[in-house]
Amino acid sequence: MNYRITSYILGQIALLEAALLSIPFVLSIAYSDDTVLAFGITILILAALGTPFVIKKPKKREFRAREGFVTVALSWIMLSLFGSLPFFISGHIPNFFDSLFETISGFTTTGASILTNVEALPKSLLFWRSFTHWIGGMGVLVFVIAIIPKTDAKIIHLFRAESPGPQVGKLVSKLKFTARILYGIYIAMTALEIIFLLIGRMSLFDSFIHAFGTAGTGGFSNKNLSVGSYNSPYIDIVVTVFMLLFSINFNLYYLILIGNFKQAVKSEELRVFLGIVFVSATAITIMLALNSVYATFGETLRHSFFQVASIVSTTGFSTTDFTTWPMLCQLILFVLMFVGACAGSTGGGLKVSRIIILFKAGFREIKHSISPRTIVNVKFEGKPLDSAIYNAVLSYFTIFMIIYVLSVLLISLPFGNNTSGFVYGFTGVAACINNIGPGFGEIGPMGNFTMFNNFSTMVLAFDMLVGRLEILPMLLLFNPKVWRKI
Amino acid sequence: MNYRITSYILGQIALLEAALLSIPFVLSIAYSDDTVLAFGITILILAALGTPFVIKKPKKREFRAREGFVTVALSWIMLSLFGSLPFFISGHIPNFFDSLFETISGFTTTGASILTNVEALPKSLLFWRSFTHWIGGMGVLVFVIAIIPKTDAKIIHLFRAESPGPQVGKLVSKLKFTARILYGIYIAMTALEIIFLLIGRMSLFDSFIHAFGTAGTGGFSNKNLSVGSYNSPYIDIVVTVFMLLFSINFNLYYLILIGNFKQAVKSEELRVFLGIVFVSATAITIMLALNSVYATFGETLRHSFFQVASIVSTTGFSTTDFTTWPMLCQLILFVLMFVGACAGSTGGGLKVSRIIILFKAGFREIKHSISPRTIVNVKFEGKPLDSAIYNAVLSYFTIFMIIYVLSVLLISLPFGNNTSGFVYGFTGVAACINNIGPGFGEIGPMGNFTMFNNFSTMVLAFDMLVGRLEILPMLLLFNPKVWRKI
Repeated sequence: MNYRITSYILGQIALLEAALLSIPFVLSIAYSDDTVLAFGITILILAALGTPFVIKKPKKREFRAREGFVTVALSWIMLSLFGSLPFFISGHIPNFFDSLFETISGFTTTGASILTNVEALPKSLLFWRSFTHWIGGMGVLVFVIAIIPKTDAKIIHLFRAESPGPQVGKLVSKLKFTARILYGIYIAMTALEIIFLLIGRMSLFDSFIHAFGTAGTGGFSNKNLSVGSYNSPYIDIVVTVFMLLFSINFNLYYLILIGNFKQAVKSEELRVFLGIVFVSATAITIMLALNSVYATFGETLRHSFFQVASIVSTTGFSTTDFTTWPMLCQLILFVLMFVGACAGSTGGGLKVSRIIILFKAGFREIKHSISPRTIVNVKFEGKPLDSAIYNAVLSYFTIFMIIYVLSVLLISLPFGNNTSGFVYGFTGVAACINNIGPGFGEIGPMGNFTMFNNFSTMVLAFDMLVGRLEILPMLLLFNPKVWRKI
Repeated sequence: MNYRITSYILGQIALLEAALLSIPFVLSIAYSDDTVLAFGITILILAALGTPFVIKKPKKREFRAREGFVTVALSWIMLSLFGSLPFFISGHIPNFFDSLFETISGFTTTGASILTNVEALPKSLLFWRSFTHWIGGMGVLVFVIAIIPKTDAKIIHLFRAESPGPQVGKLVSKLKFTARILYGIYIAMTALEIIFLLIGRMSLFDSFIHAFGTAGTGGFSNKNLSVGSYNSPYIDIVVTVFMLLFSINFNLYYLILIGNFKQAVKSEELRVFLGIVFVSATAITIMLALNSVYATFGETLRHSFFQVASIVSTTGFSTTDFTTWPMLCQLILFVLMFVGACAGSTGGGLKVSRIIILFKAGFREIKHSISPRTIVNVKFEGKPLDSAIYNAVLSYFTIFMIIYVLSVLLISLPFGNNTSGFVYGFTGVAACINNIGPGFGEIGPMGNFTMFNNFSTMVLAFDMLVGRLEILPMLLLFNPKVWRKI
C-alpha cells in the first residue's frame, strides 16, 4: 500500500467535504437553525485534518488496483464519519451510531432511517441529509477526478472501484472528461427534475430534497409520509419517471448527446430493465385491482408503477404503505430489490446486467449439459460474453449472497422467537445491501430502523457500503496483505 | 430421444414398483387393513402397463446424456404417480394432488406432509409411505442398475442423472458392481440402525419406519410428534448419529471397506461437514442455554445436536418444536437447509462440496481482483479445481436460486398481506427444494402443509423433484429439443 498517495487523496476528500458542508452551514445561518455550531465545528475539523495531507504532492506515484479499492473504501468511511458529526453535535441524533447509520444510509443512497419523526429536523440538517444522497449517487471520487486539474492514468483504479456494474469503461479517452460528462448529465437531470417539481407547486426547498433523493436513488424525504404526503398524481408521475431515468446507464445519455440515439435504444440492458418494470408493475396492478386495494384504477396504476420504480431504482420513496398489499405484490418488490438498476447508473442492487448474465450463465450450463461436446457461445449486448466477466459475475453473486446471509444471522440476535424476526432480518438486510431503504413489516415505508441495536445498525451500515461500493473495496479492508507498505 | 429404450426402462421401473408394493400389500393382508384392495389394484395396473414394454429388448442402443436425464425424470414422475394410488384409492388421502404431494415427498426423501394426523393411517400405508423414502434415498435407477444382469456402458448417464453431487464417479470399473456396493452399504447401515432402535425398545414396526426415514434422509414418522414422541435420550442419540452417517459420501464407506481408512478421513468435504455440524450445534446450544429454553444442559445439547443433524442431513425428524427457539437459532437452521449433506450421500440441499467450491470461487475472485495478473489456483480435495466444475457449481447455485425465488412467488398467491406469508413462502420452498420436510411457523415440525392449495402443492412437489434430481432432469422435460425422435 502506498500510504502517502492514499492520505493525499483522503486529505482532498476531507477538504471537499468541508466545502460541501458549507452549503448547509450557510442555510443553517439563513434559517437561524440550532445547527450553526455543529456545521461550523465539523467544517473546521475537516479543514484542520485535511490540509496537512494535501500541501505536498506525493512523489511515489505507484497506485495499483488494490490501492484504488482501499482508498475508495476509506474515503467513504471518512466521509460518513465526519458527515455524521452535524447530526450528533447538534444533538438531533443523540446516539453516535445512529447518526453514523443515517449518514452512511445517505451517502450510499440507501435511505433507511432511524428517525421516527423526520419533520422535526431543522431545514439545514434535512438539506445535508438529502445532499449526501446526491453526493454519493454519482460518487465522490468521480467528482474529485472531474475537478482536479491534472489526472494520472492510474487514477482509473479509483474510478473503477467507485462506479457500479460488472464492466466500467471510459466514455472518452481522458478520464477527467469522462467524469465531467457524467457529472454534467447528473447536474442537468437533477435541475430538470427540480423544475418539474416546482411546476407541480412543490416548494423550492422540498423540490431540492426530493430531486436529491431521486437523482442519487436514495429516498430520504423531509416528510414522514414521503412523496405520498403531497397526494399529487402529477408529482408521483414526475418522480416515477425521474427514478427510472436515474436508473439507466449514464453512458446511454452520453450516446444520445453525441447523436447516437440508435445505439442507445439498442441496449440490451435497457430493454430488459424496462421489460422488468413493465411486467412487474402490470402484475402488481392486476393483483391490486383484483383485491380492490384502491378506489380507482388510476390510483392503482399510479401506486404500482411508483412503487416498482422506487424499488427497482433502489430509491425507496413511497406513496403508499406497500406492506399492506397482497403477499405476492410484496414478494415481487422483494425480488426487485435484488435486481436493482442498470450498471453505470446511480442505482444499487445486483444490477440488471448482472441478472442478465446470471440467467445466460444458467442457460449456457443447461445447454452444455445436453450437448457436452458443443461449445455454447453466450452473447451480451451483441458481443460474445468474455469468460472472465462471466466468472466475475457468478462469483459476485455468490459472495453477495454469502454476505447477505451472514448479515441476516448477525443482526437477528436480539429478535425473539416470533416469525416476524425472519421478515425483519431478511428484508432489513436486503433493503440495506441493495441500497433501497425501507424493508417490510415494521421496517417498511411507514416504519423505520429504530428497532435495531447499535451492533445491528453497524452491520447494516457495513452492508450499505458493501452494496454501494460493490463488495470488493469493503472486503479488502480486512486483507492484511493490502496494508503492507510499498 | 430414443423412445424405445426410454419406454423399456420405464416398463422395468413399473414392474419394480409393483414388486416393491407387494411388501405393503402383504402387510395390509397381515394387519387386515382397509388398504388390501388399493394395493392390489395398484400392483395390477403397474404390471399390466409395464409388461408390454419389457417383452422385447430395444435394438437401437443410442442413449445420450439427454436421454439419461429425461428418463430419470420420467421414472421418478411415474413412480410417484402410481405410488400415490394406494393413498388415493383407499380414501385415506381423498384429494389426488395431496396424495401425489405426499408420495413425491416420500420418494424425494423430503418428508413434508399434508396429513394432520399421521397416526390415523393404517400400518400398511404408513409402511409404504416410509418405504418410499428408503427407495428414493439411494435411487431407484441405481437399484435397477444393480439388479439387471447385463449393463451397457451408456447406462452411466442414468446413474449420473440420479446421483447427487457435482461429480459422480464409479467406485469400481463396472457400474453394476458400483451400484451393488452402494446398495450393500445402504442395506447394511439400515439394518444396523434397526438393531440399535430395537435395543432402545422401539417396536419392530416403528424401528423399520424410522430407519427408512433416517436412511433416505426423508423424515416421515408414524408419530405426530416424530422422534420426540419416544421421549428417549438413547433413541435421539441413535437417530442423530445415523442421520449424520447417512449424510456422508458413501464412497468414503467404500474406501473404509477396502481398508483405505486414511484416505477416507482425509476427505475435505467430510471435515467441513463435521465442522459445520459442530459449530452450528454449539452455537445453538449456547443460545438455548442463555435463554433457558430447556430445563437441563443435557436436554439442550441433545435437542440442538438432533435438530442440526436433522436439518443438515435434510431428514426433517424432530424431537422438539424449533420454531419456538430464538430467531438466530431458527435462522442457523434455515441456512443449514441450503447447505445440506455431502455429495454422494442420500441427503439433499446444495451439498457441502458445492458450498466449499462456492466459497473457494469467491475467494479466488477476490484474490484475482487484488492481483489481476497472477493466476490463482483453487484446490479441492487436494486436486486443482477444474474450471468446468467450478463453472458448473456457480451456475448450479444460480439456477437453484432462480427456481427457488420463482417458486416462492408462485405459491404466495393465496397468502394475505400478513408478513407470516413471507415466512411460509421462503421456508416452505426451502424445505421442499432442499428435501428437508418441515419449514417454519405453521409449516414447522409440529405443523403440516395443509395450508397450501392444489396449485401450490404441485409447485412444491416439482421443487422436491428439482432438489432430489439436481435440477437438470426436471428442466430438460421442458426442452422441446430433447423430445425430438432419433
